[in-house]
Amino acid sequence: MFRSHTCGELRESHINESITLAGWVQKSRDKGFMIWIDLRDRYGITQLIFDEERTSKKLIEKAKLLGREFVIQVHGTVIERASKNPTIPTGNIEILVSDFSILNESLTPPFTIEDETDGGDDIRMKYRYLDIRRNPVRENLVFRHQVTMAVRNYLSNKEFVEIETPYLIKSTPEGARDFIVPSRMNEGQFYALPQSPQTFKQLLMVGGMDKYFQIVKCFRDEDLRADRQPEFTQIDCEMAFVEQEDILLTFEGLTRHLIKKIKGIEISNFPRMTYDSAMKLYGNDKPDIRFGMEFGELNEFAKHKDFAVFNNSELVVGIAIPGGNNYSRKDIDKLINWVKRPQIGASGMVYCKCNEDGTYKSSVDKFYTQEDLSKWAEATGAKAGDLICILSGETNKVRAQLSALRMEMGERLGLRKNDEFAPLWVVDFPLLEWDEETERFHAMHHPFTSPKPEQIELLKTAPGSVKANAYDLVLNGNEIGGGSIRIHDKETQAMMFEYLGFTPEEAKAQFGFLMDAFQYGAPPHGGIAFGLDRLVSILGGQETIRDFIAFPKNNSGRDVMINAPSYIDDQQLKDLNLRLNEK
Amino acid sequence: MFRSHTCGELRESHINESITLAGWVQKSRDKGFMIWIDLRDRYGITQLIFDEERTSKKLIEKAKLLGREFVIQVHGTVIERASKNPTIPTGNIEILVSDFSILNESLTPPFTIEDETDGGDDIRMKYRYLDIRRNPVRENLVFRHQVTMAVRNYLSNKEFVEIETPYLIKSTPEGARDFIVPSRMNEGQFYALPQSPQTFKQLLMVGGMDKYFQIVKCFRDEDLRADRQPEFTQIDCEMAFVEQEDILLTFEGLTRHLIKKIKGIEISNFPRMTYDSAMKLYGNDKPDIRFGMEFGELNEFAKHKDFAVFNNSELVVGIAIPGGNNYSRKDIDKLINWVKRPQIGASGMVYCKCNEDGTYKSSVDKFYTQEDLSKWAEATGAKAGDLICILSGETNKVRAQLSALRMEMGERLGLRKNDEFAPLWVVDFPLLEWDEETERFHAMHHPFTSPKPEQIELLKTAPGSVKANAYDLVLNGNEIGGGSIRIHDKETQAMMFEYLGFTPEEAKAQFGFLMDAFQYGAPPHGGIAFGLDRLVSILGGQETIRDFIAFPKNNSGRDVMINAPSYIDDQQLKDLNLRLNEK
Repeated sequence: MFRSHTCGELRESHINESITLAGWVQKSRDKGFMIWIDLRDRYGITQLIFDEERTSKKLIEKAKLLGREFVIQVHGTVIERASKNPTIPTGNIEILVSDFSILNESLTPPFTIEDETDGGDDIRMKYRYLDIRRNPVRENLVFRHQVTMAVRNYLSNKEFVEIETPYLIKSTPEGARDFIVPSRMNEGQFYALPQSPQTFKQLLMVGGMDKYFQIVKCFRDEDLRADRQPEFTQIDCEMAFVEQEDILLTFEGLTRHLIKKIKGIEISNFPRMTYDSAMKLYGNDKPDIRFGMEFGELNEFAKHKDFAVFNNSELVVGIAIPGGNNYSRKDIDKLINWVKRPQIGASGMVYCKCNEDGTYKSSVDKFYTQEDLSKWAEATGAKAGDLICILSGETNKVRAQLSALRMEMGERLGLRKNDEFAPLWVVDFPLLEWDEETERFHAMHHPFTSPKPEQIELLKTAPGSVKANAYDLVLNGNEIGGGSIRIHDKETQAMMFEYLGFTPEEAKAQFGFLMDAFQYGAPPHGGIAFGLDRLVSILGGQETIRDFIAFPKNNSGRDVMINAPSYIDDQQLKDLNLRLNEK
Repeated sequence: MFRSHTCGELRESHINESITLAGWVQKSRDKGFMIWIDLRDRYGITQLIFDEERTSKKLIEKAKLLGREFVIQVHGTVIERASKNPTIPTGNIEILVSDFSILNESLTPPFTIEDETDGGDDIRMKYRYLDIRRNPVRENLVFRHQVTMAVRNYLSNKEFVEIETPYLIKSTPEGARDFIVPSRMNEGQFYALPQSPQTFKQLLMVGGMDKYFQIVKCFRDEDLRADRQPEFTQIDCEMAFVEQEDILLTFEGLTRHLIKKIKGIEISNFPRMTYDSAMKLYGNDKPDIRFGMEFGELNEFAKHKDFAVFNNSELVVGIAIPGGNNYSRKDIDKLINWVKRPQIGASGMVYCKCNEDGTYKSSVDKFYTQEDLSKWAEATGAKAGDLICILSGETNKVRAQLSALRMEMGERLGLRKNDEFAPLWVVDFPLLEWDEETERFHAMHHPFTSPKPEQIELLKTAPGSVKANAYDLVLNGNEIGGGSIRIHDKETQAMMFEYLGFTPEEAKAQFGFLMDAFQYGAPPHGGIAFGLDRLVSILGGQETIRDFIAFPKNNSGRDVMINAPSYIDDQQLKDLNLRLNEK
C-alpha cells in the first residue's frame, strides 16, 4: 500500500491522524523557513507543510529539491490549517510531513498541468498522458464513463442485452470507405472493420434477441473534416416487433433519463418535426430549437416586382434578428460579408429594418412598398426593432446559407445556452438522395431502411420523393442519434438494392447472408444509433468531441503520441502476400 | 405496438384478458378439430389454441398453413388451460385465438430450433442467426451480458473508470503477430489492431487516472488452436500506487463478487502458490485444485537401483489415482496407451498398485523392494486401494505429460465439478523464458513486467532464474486472468528491452513514447487482464468459449455466415497503394 488515503479525502475529522499519501507535486512554495507543497492525485489536492520548527532540517533540504510533477510518497500527521482554503474540499487541513520518499522524478513538463494550460493542441496531443493529468481532461473522461454506465444500466434494466458483434467483418463498397485488414490465413482476402454493426444487429433480431444494444467502436476511412475521428463510438440499439413509435418512445426515455441523471434537468417534451418542415423552417435537418428565428419564405411577397435578383431566384427566404434594427450600417456590412465568405457562399444579402414606429427601411426600397415589407415582417415573424435578413437563390443552397446565418446569430445573441437542452425528433426522412457525382440515388440512411409502405409504388415513378421510416434525434442543433425501421423481407430488400444500382449478383455477394436470413422468419424490427462522442460532449456542454476521447487522432488520422500509423517490416507485408506499389 | 405482452409473461391472473402476442411458431399440433401452436419469443413460450367450437373455420384453415418459424401476430383471450404444463411458467394458461396475421413466412430451417438440435457445428455457424434462436445459445449470450454488467458495476463502484483506448494503433513485432490496417491518408504506413491496450493503460496511469478498466476487443493473428479466436475480449484493468498485494486483493474481490452474484456461491479462500510450486506439484502453471492427486517426485527413491529408464531420466514423478488398485490389466494398458498418444507423448508408464493389505505390486518389481515402493506411496500420498502412475524423462516434458494424465483422471473420476469453483493465485512467475526457436529470452508476460527488485542483479548472471512481480488468477484449471506490476522508470525499461534483444534504436522507435512518459513522473502501477470469453464460459459451467460468442470465427479465422474475409475491389487496394504479390 502506497497510501492510507487519497489526496481528496482528508477533512477536519482526520486531524491528528497519521496518514500516508502518494501523488504528484502540483506546486511548491518555498519561504525559506517554511515550504508548502500541493500534492495532487485523481481525487484532489492536499497541502503538505514543512517548517523549521517542526520539520528536520534534512527533510526541508530534501523537500526543496522537489520539482513539478515529481511523484512522492508522504508520511505525516493531519493538522488544522492556519489559513483555510474554502475553495477545495481538503482546504481546512494540511499534512505536517514527518518523512517522504521520491517514487519517481520528473523532467519539467512541456506545458503547465493546470486547468488553463499554456500548451497548444499539438503539444498536448503529443504528451497526452500529461494533458490527462489536467482537471478538465480528466473530468471529461470520468464524465464519459458516467454517461456510459448510465446508458448501460438504463438499457439493461429495460431488458436490452449488450451483445458484442465482430470487428473483423466483410468489406462492402456501399457507403463510406472501409478500413481493411489483410488476412494471412486466407491469402489474398481481407476483412473490413465495421462502419457500424448494422447487419449483425439485424441478424440478432432475426435470431430472436428482441432487444439489443452495444457501446461499440466503429470505423470510417473518410477524409477527416474537423472534429471527425477515423474511429468513433456508437451506442447501437435494435428492437424487434416494433414500429417507429415504439422506438421513439423508448429512446426518448433513455435521453430523458440521461439528462436527468447527468445534468439534473427534467425534459418533458420531445417535439417531432418532419424532415420537410425542418428544411423549410430551419434550412437544416438538425435544427437547434433552443431559439426561434424560423425562416419566412418570401417568394409570394418578393417575386412580383422588378427586382431581378429575387425574380431569378428559386427561393427568397428571410429570418428576423431580434433587436437587429439598431445595427449600424457597418454592422450590417459585416454581416453581409460574413454570408459572402466562401464557407457560406451567399452572393449577397438583402435586409429590412423594422423601425419602432412601424415603418420599414430596406436595402431594396426602390422595388418594394411598405406594404410589401410588412408582409416580409409577417412571414418572418419580425417585430418592431428587428432586422430581417433575406437570402435568395437555389433552394437547397440558400437554405443552407440562411441556416448558417441563423446559427451564427443564435450564438452571437447568446441564445445557444450550454445548460439548456432541447431535443427534437426529425422524422420522415427521404429514402434516397441524389448524388451529383455518381449521378445516381444513394440510400440517405442506409440500404436497409424501410420506405413508407404506402409509398413503395412511388419508387418507380418518383424515387426522390419517397419517404422512409427514418428518424434522427437532434439535441441543441446536433444529430445525436439516427435510425430507422428496417426492411425485413427479402423481396423489398432485393428491390432496394436494385434501385441503388446493385446487380442481383452484387447484392447476393455482399448481403446474401442478410437476404437469406430474411427468408427464415425475420421479425419486423428497427433501431437507432447514437454517436457517443458527440452525445457526451453536448451533455458536457462543450464543443469538440476530441476533449472527451482519451487518445484522439488528428485530422490526418495520426496518433501523434505513439506515432501511428507507421512503416512496418517487409516481412510482415510478405507474410500477408502484399507489397507496396512502386511510385 | 406489435404485442401487448411477451410470450413469457402471461399467467392465471391474466385470464379473460384480451391480449396481442407476436413471435415464432415453435411447433404446431393439428388434431383436425383442434390446433395447438407453441408461440415463442425471447421470453418464453405461450400455447395458442384454435378449436372448431370457438374458432372460425376460416381461421383454423389459415392456422393449418403455419409452418415452423413463421412469424405471426396473434390476438386472443387468455383462458385457463385444460391440461396444465407445470414445466413452463405460462403452463397454466393458453390463448384462444380470435385472429392472427402472418408477419413473415419461413422456409423450413436447416436444423431444428430446439435445445438439442440436429444441426452440426458447421451448419449452425452458417445459420448462426437461427442457432441464436435456440435457448442454450440465447441464454449464454444473456449470461455474458449479465457477467459484464456485474463486472462494470462492481469496478465502477470501486472508483475504476472505464476508458476507451484506440483500436488503430502501432504495430510492434514483439510478441504475437499483429493484424495490420493500411492507412490511405498516410501512404505506405499501417496501423495495427491492439493485442491488448497494455501501453495505453500504462499511459493512463502516468496520466493520473489511478484506476482504469475496459472491456475491450483484442486481436491476435495467430494460427488458431482449438477454441482460440482471432478477436477476443478482455476485462483490462490497471491501478496506480499499488503493490502486488493490492492488486491481488482487489481482483479477488471482483472474482468473489461475480461468483456470488452470478452463481450464488460464496468463495472464502483464494489460496496462493508460487509458479515453481505449481510446476512441481501439478506440472502446470494453472492447476485445477478442485481435486488432489498432487505430484510426488520420486528421484530420491527410484534412481538408485538398476532400472535404467529411471536412472537416465531427469525426473521421475508420480500421482496416486484414488481407487485405481482395482483397475484390470486391460484398464491399465489403456491408460498406458493414452499417455503414449502423440498428443501426450510419454514413452511409457510405470505403475504400482497399492493393495488393501498394505503390500505393493508394481510393473518394475524386479528393480524395487516393497520398502522402495512404500516410499513412492508416501511421496505421492497413495493410500491402500490406489494406483500410482509414474512417468519419467526430461523435467518440463514429463511434468506436462503427467499433468495431462492428472486432468484426464480428474475428469474420468468426476472430480472436476461444474458447480464447484476453486480459484488460485499463481505468483512469482519467471520474468523471462527461453525460446528454442529464436535462441533468445522472451518476456514470459510482456516486456513491461517488473522483475523482483531484489533480483535485478541476477539478470546479468542468471536471467532465466529471475522472478517477476507477475501473477495469474486460475479458476478450475483455467487461467482466467494474468497481470503484473509494471516497470515505471526509463532505465529499468531500457535495460529490459536490451535483455530482450532490442537495439536502443528499435526500443525507441517502438516504445519511445512509453519511455518518454516514464520521465515525467510515472507512478508505480500494475494491473491485470481477464479473458472474458473464457471467464464467462467457466462461470457458465461449459467447456467451449465459442458458445458464448454471438458470431464466432472458425479455426481458419473465417466467419462462415457472412463469408469473411473476402476478396476486395482492385480499386480499394489501389487507393491504399497496395497490391497482391503474384504467385
